Amino acid sequence: MYFSKFFVPTTKQEPSDAELASHKLMIRSGMIKKTASGIYNWLPIGLRVLKKVENIVRESMNSFDAQEILMPMVQPAELWKKSERYNDYGKELLKFKDRSERDFVLGPTHEEVICDIFKSYPISYKELPVNLYQIQTKFRDEIRPRFGVMRSREFVMKDAYSFDIDQDGLIKSYENMKNAYIAAFNKIGLEYRIVKADAGVIGGDVSEEFHIIADSGEDLIAISDSSDFAANVEVLDYKKDPSELNGQESPDGHGKLQVKRGIEVGHIFQLGQKYSEKMKVSLKNEKGQEQNLYMGCYGIGISRIVAASIEQNHDDIGIIWPYSIAPFHINIICLDPKRKEVLEECENVYEILKKSGHDVLLDNRDLRAGIKFSEHEMLGIPFSIIIGPNNYNKNHYEFTVRSGNVKSELTIDEIKQKMEKLK
Amino acid sequence: MYFSKFFVPTTKQEPSDAELASHKLMIRSGMIKKTASGIYNWLPIGLRVLKKVENIVRESMNSFDAQEILMPMVQPAELWKKSERYNDYGKELLKFKDRSERDFVLGPTHEEVICDIFKSYPISYKELPVNLYQIQTKFRDEIRPRFGVMRSREFVMKDAYSFDIDQDGLIKSYENMKNAYIAAFNKIGLEYRIVKADAGVIGGDVSEEFHIIADSGEDLIAISDSSDFAANVEVLDYKKDPSELNGQESPDGHGKLQVKRGIEVGHIFQLGQKYSEKMKVSLKNEKGQEQNLYMGCYGIGISRIVAASIEQNHDDIGIIWPYSIAPFHINIICLDPKRKEVLEECENVYEILKKSGHDVLLDNRDLRAGIKFSEHEMLGIPFSIIIGPNNYNKNHYEFTVRSGNVKSELTIDEIKQKMEKLK
Repeated sequence: MYFSKFFVPTTKQEPSDAELASHKLMIRSGMIKKTASGIYNWLPIGLRVLKKVENIVRESMNSFDAQEILMPMVQPAELWKKSERYNDYGKELLKFKDRSERDFVLGPTHEEVICDIFKSYPISYKELPVNLYQIQTKFRDEIRPRFGVMRSREFVMKDAYSFDIDQDGLIKSYENMKNAYIAAFNKIGLEYRIVKADAGVIGGDVSEEFHIIADSGEDLIAISDSSDFAANVEVLDYKKDPSELNGQESPDGHGKLQVKRGIEVGHIFQLGQKYSEKMKVSLKNEKGQEQNLYMGCYGIGISRIVAASIEQNHDDIGIIWPYSIAPFHINIICLDPKRKEVLEECENVYEILKKSGHDVLLDNRDLRAGIKFSEHEMLGIPFSIIIGPNNYNKNHYEFTVRSGNVKSELTIDEIKQKMEKLK
Repeated sequence: MYFSKFFVPTTKQEPSDAELASHKLMIRSGMIKKTASGIYNWLPIGLRVLKKVENIVRESMNSFDAQEILMPMVQPAELWKKSERYNDYGKELLKFKDRSERDFVLGPTHEEVICDIFKSYPISYKELPVNLYQIQTKFRDEIRPRFGVMRSREFVMKDAYSFDIDQDGLIKSYENMKNAYIAAFNKIGLEYRIVKADAGVIGGDVSEEFHIIADSGEDLIAISDSSDFAANVEVLDYKKDPSELNGQESPDGHGKLQVKRGIEVGHIFQLGQKYSEKMKVSLKNEKGQEQNLYMGCYGIGISRIVAASIEQNHDDIGIIWPYSIAPFHINIICLDPKRKEVLEECENVYEILKKSGHDVLLDNRDLRAGIKFSEHEMLGIPFSIIIGPNNYNKNHYEFTVRSGNVKSELTIDEIKQKMEKLK
C-alpha cells in the first residue's frame, strides 16, 4: 500500500473521554472513529488488524472441527422469552418493535438462536458433537461505554456453541475449544493466562476466562508464581482487599499467589442443560430415551483483543504490534519521494518485500522526515527501512525494529532473513 | 471436509412460504434457516458460498483502489435528521431508543455515517479521490419480506462511497467503480446486464443497476438485441404494458428492444452534492474556496447474488453452482465407506485434489448410494467422482460434471486437467 493513497486520518488531538493508552492511540493513529457513545467505525488501518485477529481465530476454530455459520443480529423476543432471559438479562439487552409491532432484541449473544437452529433438524446422537461458531457484530447496551472499543456497545465477537449427548461429551468439547483458544492466543503472541471464573449471567457450572495481562486491565486475577494456577479474584476467598491474596499459598499447592491485572478477551462455559431444557433441544440417546443435550458456549472478543494488544505493548511514543496482527509488517520510509531515483529504489524494495509475502507500506508522502518517523512510531509497524538521497544506491539500508528501536545497516537479503527470524 | 462431520441439515420438506426455486433449494440443501420473517441464518454450506462472493467482491474493490472499513449497524438518529432522511426514508428505516432514551436507527445504508467520518479529518483536495467501502450486515424493515434471502430484512451488502472535489472527479470515480463491478461479475461468471436506472430514494442524477438475468426476476428490463443498451423499463416510455417495448427501436439506434426479467444485485449512483451539502462535507478547492464534495455510492447485494445465481442456474433436481462460488468444487462419493480399501482410496484421491488447490467434499456417510447421488445433485457441486467396490483399484474413476450431468471414466490426472479446463 502506498501511504499517499491510504486513508489514515491520524490526529494529534487526544479524545477528551480517553483514559486508556489504547483508546488514545487507536484514535490518534486513525484506526477507529466514534459515531456515538460506545459505537465506533473501524477505519482502514484498524480494520486490517481486526481482520488479522479474526482470521487467526477462524483458522484455529476450523482446525479444531468447529464450523462457521452466520446468525442474525436482530432476534425475535419470543426466543428470549422461552429461555427466560428476556427480563433476566437486564438493560444491556436492547429491545425494540418492528413495523408490525412485533418485539425484537439486538443480539448480545446467540444461545437462543443456535438452539432454535439446532432443534429443528433430525440428527442422530451419533452425529454429535456438533460445534457451530460465527464471527459477527454484537450489541450490548452498556450503561457506561468507555475505553474505546474495549467496552463498546457494538463490537465484533466470535461465539461458538457445542452440542453433546452427555456430560462426558461436553467435557471433551470444552477441552477441545480450550485447546483451540490456546492455539489462537499462542499464534497472536500476547502474554495471557487461563483463569478460573464465575459463569455469571450466561450460566452453567464450569467456566474459564482468557486474560491478556496488562497493568490497565479491569479484572484482578491471582496467579501462582510456580504453576499454571490462575483465578479471577471474584472466585477466591479474601476478606476486604484482593491484595490480601498476594503471597498466599496457591490453592493448587504449588507456589505463592500474586495479584495482577488482566483484560478478559475470551470466556468458555460448560452450560450443561440450562438452555437445552428451556429451549427443548433434545435427541434420543443410545437407549432410545429423549435426552436434553449438553451445551457449551465459547466467546472471543475480537475487537477487544486489538485494544488489549495495545495495552500490553506500547511505549510513550506509540503502538508496538506483534508481527502476527500488525496492519503492515514493514514500512519503507522514503526520505525524498520527489527525487526519481530515490522513489524508484523504494519501489524496487517494496516489490521485493511484497513478493516475499510481507505486508508492506511505502511512505511516499511529500512530508518532513520527522513527521514520517513519529507517525511510523505511533502506528507501531514492527519494522522499517529508511531510504533517502544518501543511501539509495549503496545496496544497504537503515533497518529499524520498532520494539526497542534497534537500528542496523543491512542489505535486502539480510533484512528478509532478519524479518523471518524476528517475526 | 468429510461429509459425516459436516453440519448440512438437508430436508425434503419445502418451506410453505417459498415461491422461488432459490428459496426452496437453499432451505432444502441446508444453506439457510429462518429465524423470523425475513431474517435468516447462514449455515455452513450456505456461508461458504456467501464468503466466496464476498471475497471476489473484496478483491475487486481493493484492486480498483477502494479501501475497506467497517461502520456500525446502530446509527444515531441525529445523523439521519441532518440528511433529512429520518422521515423521508419511510418505514423500512427501523427506529428505536437505547437505554438512555436516545433515538437510533438500524442502518439500511451508510451515506450519513460515511459523511460524518469523512468530514472530521483535515484532508487536502489533492488527496482526493477517496473511496471507502464495507461488507456488512444491513437491516431494512421490508413490509413484505419474501423469496428467502432475496428480499430479506437482514442481509449482507457491500456498500462503497467516493468523495471528489468536482463533477469530473465523480465521473471518474463512478466509471472506476463500474469497472470494479464488471471485473467482479465477470469473475463470478453469471449472465448479467448493466441497466440504466432510476435513482429513487437514494437520490442523485445518474445511476445504473447490475442485473442478473433470470426468468423469475422481479424487474423488467429492455435490452437491445444488437448493442449493450439496457434500461429498466421504469425509465422508458410506454403506455400500458412494458411488453409494448418488445421489437421497438433501441434508443441508442442499434437494434431492437427485447423485454427480459432481471434480478438487481448491484446499483451505482452519482449522488453529486445531495448529501455533502446537508451533512456539510466540504474542502477548500484549488482556488481556496470552500466546496461541497461530489459523492458517489455503490452497492452490491452479497447475499442476494447467492440466490440470484441459483435462479439463473438450476434444474428440476437442484442447484448448479458456477465454479467461482461453489461451496465445494468436487464431491468424492464413496459407495462403500465401511470397506477399508474403498475408503482409503477415497481418502487418497481427497488428499491429491486438496493439494492441487480444490475445495473437496468427501461423502463418507454410511447411506444408500441413491440418497448420496440425489443430495449431491441438489447441492449443486460442479464435479463428482464416484468410487466404489468395483472401481477403487482400477486407477480410473467415474467423473461427472453437474451441469448437463456428463459422465466419463478418467484417471486422476485427467480429472485434474478436466477441472482446470472447465472451471
